[in-house]
Amino acid sequence: MDSVIRPLRRPSRARRPPRTPNPEVPRRFLDAAAALIREQGYQSLLIEEIAERAGLAVGTFYLYFDSKEDLFVQLVLEYTERLRTRLRDAYATPGTLRERLARALDVYLDFVEENERGFLYYRDFSIETNVGPLATWAIDRHAEDLRPLIEEAMQRGELPQNDPDLTAQTLIAVTQHIAGFWLEHRDKYSREQIEWFLTRSLFTS
Amino acid sequence: MDSVIRPLRRPSRARRPPRTPNPEVPRRFLDAAAALIREQGYQSLLIEEIAERAGLAVGTFYLYFDSKEDLFVQLVLEYTERLRTRLRDAYATPGTLRERLARALDVYLDFVEENERGFLYYRDFSIETNVGPLATWAIDRHAEDLRPLIEEAMQRGELPQNDPDLTAQTLIAVTQHIAGFWLEHRDKYSREQIEWFLTRSLFTS
Repeated sequence: MDSVIRPLRRPSRARRPPRTPNPEVPRRFLDAAAALIREQGYQSLLIEEIAERAGLAVGTFYLYFDSKEDLFVQLVLEYTERLRTRLRDAYATPGTLRERLARALDVYLDFVEENERGFLYYRDFSIETNVGPLATWAIDRHAEDLRPLIEEAMQRGELPQNDPDLTAQTLIAVTQHIAGFWLEHRDKYSREQIEWFLTRSLFTS
Repeated sequence: MDSVIRPLRRPSRARRPPRTPNPEVPRRFLDAAAALIREQGYQSLLIEEIAERAGLAVGTFYLYFDSKEDLFVQLVLEYTERLRTRLRDAYATPGTLRERLARALDVYLDFVEENERGFLYYRDFSIETNVGPLATWAIDRHAEDLRPLIEEAMQRGELPQNDPDLTAQTLIAVTQHIAGFWLEHRDKYSREQIEWFLTRSLFTS
């Protein structure tokens, strides 16, 4: 739980960490919060509700987390790592850039569907942390993972020569934005339409 | 000053508007805040500093604004309208889609350079308002303005046929994201490189 990334907005009173930390305890709070965010979203969530769902005391919550925002940052870090693992697996499959990116896009849209409310909150209200805005940090990690694939595709002539960092930032930013737009306009667009649009507009060389 | 868009996070005590509102007063607070944001950014800014720069009392501030965040929302609305006017002027110039979009991109990059710190705060920490996240609201307005141009270009064969709303959202989101990335990496990219990248990757049909 002593992740190096934490919100800059800290409580005025310093948190007193537990004398004998039990890793199972923050795990239970994180899982309870993830389930509640899925059901009712983040904004209306109370720490009392998280503690109740976890079957633990509010006082115990504050031994492990500074605030609800602190817990949310830890959740975003954890879910970002899970998503990165799944995306890197897709990037590493055989095939052309277009085929591998199409598989990664599938993974990404699965992820945003599974985590709809948490994803939209993360995207819309980035939290200021000691490593900068949380959403910018996450986009930079995804762009880093994607960059070798882009360089390879440029070498193989599957993508036009261009700055690989800017290209990676563009692919990630567009995918994130359009995925969020889709979640907010599900009445208008099917998942297939979104996949088709992104595949057609982003991966053509 | 009675804009219909305001932050959802309101103070517990209701603001008591002035009996005889003076439009010059909020104007002075807004201009003072804009100048201070340009100099030192938004986050560290105190209402006391805004009042001092405006030559007015803190109590007067609270007659016209609920909070610092409320003033920031009003500033974003005002600056978004100014930017929209400049962008629509660029869209309305003669020429191909590519030429008109290149002029609009110039206008946009001028704007983000002029308003660097305010732009980055707006982009990174969207504020929840009665019309949803402020940044989403602004992107939707820009996409609406851009949509007729995209439809025209698709009719004239200057852009491949595709969903015009998704295409407009993509162009705006990429431009906003890459403009912010540029401001954060000025040591690595010149304005010319950014313009070249965006022109090359976005406007090719």
